[in-house]
Amino acid sequence: MAPIQQKIYINVDLGEGYGNYRAGPDDELIPLIDHANVACGFHAGDPLIMQQTVRACKEHGIAVGAHPGLQDILGFGRREMKLSPEELTAMVRYQVGALKAFLDAEGVPLHHVKPHGVLYSMMYRDKEVCRAVYEGVPKGTPVFGLAGTYHEEVAKELGLPFTAELYGDVKYNKDKTLVIDRKKKAWTPEETKKHISSQLENSSVTAVTGEEVELPVADHNVSLCCHSDSPGAVQIVTAARQMVDEFNKKYGYT
Amino acid sequence: MAPIQQKIYINVDLGEGYGNYRAGPDDELIPLIDHANVACGFHAGDPLIMQQTVRACKEHGIAVGAHPGLQDILGFGRREMKLSPEELTAMVRYQVGALKAFLDAEGVPLHHVKPHGVLYSMMYRDKEVCRAVYEGVPKGTPVFGLAGTYHEEVAKELGLPFTAELYGDVKYNKDKTLVIDRKKKAWTPEETKKHISSQLENSSVTAVTGEEVELPVADHNVSLCCHSDSPGAVQIVTAARQMVDEFNKKYGYT
Amino acid sequence: MAPIQQKIYINVDLGEGYGNYRAGPDDELIPLIDHANVACGFHAGDPLIMQQTVRACKEHGIAVGAHPGLQDILGFGRREMKLSPEELTAMVRYQVGALKAFLDAEGVPLHHVKPHGVLYSMMYRDKEVCRAVYEGVPKGTPVFGLAGTYHEEVAKELGLPFTAELYGDVKYNKDKTLVIDRKKKAWTPEETKKHISSQLENSSVTAVTGEEVELPVADHNVSLCCHSDSPGAVQIVTAARQMVDEFNKKYGYT
Amino acid sequence: MAPIQQKIYINVDLGEGYGNYRAGPDDELIPLIDHANVACGFHAGDPLIMQQTVRACKEHGIAVGAHPGLQDILGFGRREMKLSPEELTAMVRYQVGALKAFLDAEGVPLHHVKPHGVLYSMMYRDKEVCRAVYEGVPKGTPVFGLAGTYHEEVAKELGLPFTAELYGDVKYNKDKTLVIDRKKKAWTPEETKKHISSQLENSSVTAVTGEEVELPVADHNVSLCCHSDSPGAVQIVTAARQMVDEFNKKYGYT
Repeated sequence: MAPIQQKIYINVDLGEGYGNYRAGPDDELIPLIDHANVACGFHAGDPLIMQQTVRACKEHGIAVGAHPGLQDILGFGRREMKLSPEELTAMVRYQVGALKAFLDAEGVPLHHVKPHGVLYSMMYRDKEVCRAVYEGVPKGTPVFGLAGTYHEEVAKELGLPFTAELYGDVKYNKDKTLVIDRKKKAWTPEETKKHISSQLENSSVTAVTGEEVELPVADHNVSLCCHSDSPGAVQIVTAARQMVDEFNKKYGYT
Repeated sequence: MAPIQQKIYINVDLGEGYGNYRAGPDDELIPLIDHANVACGFHAGDPLIMQQTVRACKEHGIAVGAHPGLQDILGFGRREMKLSPEELTAMVRYQVGALKAFLDAEGVPLHHVKPHGVLYSMMYRDKEVCRAVYEGVPKGTPVFGLAGTYHEEVAKELGLPFTAELYGDVKYNKDKTLVIDRKKKAWTPEETKKHISSQLENSSVTAVTGEEVELPVADHNVSLCCHSDSPGAVQIVTAARQMVDEFNKKYGYT
Repeated sequence: MAPIQQKIYINVDLGEGYGNYRAGPDDELIPLIDHANVACGFHAGDPLIMQQTVRACKEHGIAVGAHPGLQDILGFGRREMKLSPEELTAMVRYQVGALKAFLDAEGVPLHHVKPHGVLYSMMYRDKEVCRAVYEGVPKGTPVFGLAGTYHEEVAKELGLPFTAELYGDVKYNKDKTLVIDRKKKAWTPEETKKHISSQLENSSVTAVTGEEVELPVADHNVSLCCHSDSPGAVQIVTAARQMVDEFNKKYGYT
Repeated sequence: MAPIQQKIYINVDLGEGYGNYRAGPDDELIPLIDHANVACGFHAGDPLIMQQTVRACKEHGIAVGAHPGLQDILGFGRREMKLSPEELTAMVRYQVGALKAFLDAEGVPLHHVKPHGVLYSMMYRDKEVCRAVYEGVPKGTPVFGLAGTYHEEVAKELGLPFTAELYGDVKYNKDKTLVIDRKKKAWTPEETKKHISSQLENSSVTAVTGEEVELPVADHNVSLCCHSDSPGAVQIVTAARQMVDEFNKKYGYT
């Protein structure tokens, strides 16, 4: 397929520590990215970390989105739970509102909402779940998701602006969905580069089962996701930044 | 002393269940009150209960305030914890923001903020705690507190509008502070009426140690607090409503 | 089918409050039952409630079992979660050990283990889950479960004594499994009596879809479960007690 | 003062991660120590981590004790909370029982109980708290604490064997109590060596305020505590191991 016809941005999950526990190397990642997905206290993050993360993003001019997850610190939002649609909506509304309070206090706008972990994949597998989650997003706020799945379809139905995500450090299944692990495995910068290059230049990727899968992003905004809790996250994001900068420059997306 | 020179309102803590657990008889209390203090998920309340409580208040035209507490469902926010000022501010900001999301979704304004339980009393005993909590309140939002304590003093310093509270079902110490129990004890409507009458008509109350204590409310708005988790809450609030209505009518506060 | 050829006992879940929150009328139920399933702090219960419940059971000579559940106070252990086998085993071991500490302190033996809520039904639907849960049960401790499901099969494989349960206030599906609600609905004593009578006298029950379902208990011990958080729990358990006493007397099981 | 007249052991807090979050380098520390204090899920640790930690200690022949703490993962058990004596006893009983289940499953005895963090210091400052905590310890189980404080006094009153602790990486106040931080600060191996040497060879230490403080351990067993969440924990514990081995050899304690 053809290269992506859009400027590419980079998003990373930040603020995923909890109390004394630290997750990723946020301070090193913030200067490398465009969009932050800030944990909202349910799967990770706490009020103090949210406060600090929002301030750090503001200092570096990074756009801040909410990253709501399942209420499960122990499982880091990666253990599937069966919730009612009403619970899902209320749970997302709660978390986005909590983050918005820190943004309001700093005069920073809410840039987007991106659900976390297994909630994200529950959404592309179950349209009702997807709709319930998006019902909790403030009207008009962009959502980040996977193009060609319920993410895109339901965002359109509800009139929410949609940004298509690509994944720099997560493998794909042949149905365009993601292979989620409870704990991230190590990637080499070379693997990452090959994985990203294929997505940017060919709008496709090799699935874990070997098939070549097309990843059309239509005319949506595009943001490439890398994870802060991956081993070697700084190297991976540094490599991604370099590739994205070269891609944007090569095609004149400024 | 003289009667209070203001119209009196009634506030009650609502939404203090958790999951399947129920606290007070909210449905019966809502028609009786003016101001609701809605639990925000830390000492009680959960996203679904917050959603339902905000909607019920909206239906009855009750003004809704946030009721942030210590993060301790097990202790119902009534076990003192030592927190840093930064933690206190962030914790309040988080909870108020979460409630605000449900208000925003229903088009209901945030009417006030009233800290819950032992956090409320930590504030009138420790000025630093009081300031840290109020720093987490959105600019310009009224706070409910005890006149003549740090509540009033710090609200003034930070430019937050202040509403003076009286207590219909809580006893006072002789320094105007409250006698807080982990679990509420039963009051008869007669006790409640005598307790309230003294506060409204004489601006004073008999302390648990027997002294007569003045409770001047200056020219602040005044809201009388009753508790939804007291045994016999509906009878107590019904009695309070009757007395407050008679008081307001007698003195022409409409 | 024929009547059950065993003495029938009654078991009820107890200690399912949390902090200030109360669940069932434990004090009224304890004198009516034989076996208590005591919540262990994950889906309900806390250390203080466990302590008090064990003491109350001891006073009334009630046999005490552990009632481990999913770690989800908010969902009362009734929201399905995907856990690894290792997590399930460790989670059960932890909870049973915690309860055992209160039993040891009172010199009361651990009588049995009965998993709670959706965990119980996850076990009869998934053999791997069932095995993982039972791996966390101390060697030789009886388990309570549904005869004719993985409960019985895996208990036998692992050499755990098995007690067959009947349900006084829960409806059955036609595959002998239970119809679990997030919140219990009200039953009349008449409905309960009919439901119980059929199980005791005919070893069968009418499924929610209308079929008559056989419930053979083989030569296992039999315990009839009623719920303490059902509306009208005391009436239901009183009715069950009367029926079970009459049944045991009629057939000479003393 | 004279050197300590006892063989010295080393204890370290282990298993203080939570879900995906890791705390100290447990795998590297276990081969260096004698006594493990294993977190029990309230201030840190979860059932899976407890299971793994007990197994790792068993493989290396390390004695395992319970390390109960305040129920506050967010504050890592380092935020003071006011609890009733009954709550304290029940909370400790619960946690020790939970750990004991993992020990029982591996056939490992419970070696000791050592309260964690601010609970430990609440105990040497408040005799009632100390007694309530020790009431939750199984009869006859040794407790680790500070000699010359309520730790020792109450252990004696309740008939619990007492092991005197020295601290390798925590400073002392002049009243023999500890200077506890919410997050550990870095120590150089040299500082650690000087701090330990003084305690072993002179039974005294220099307080943070400069005074020389005697630390008599009487004829109790002695265990030197180092922390796994200190920066440079492996270097500190390696240095401590070397010093303790030399001390024990020099004085013939084998």
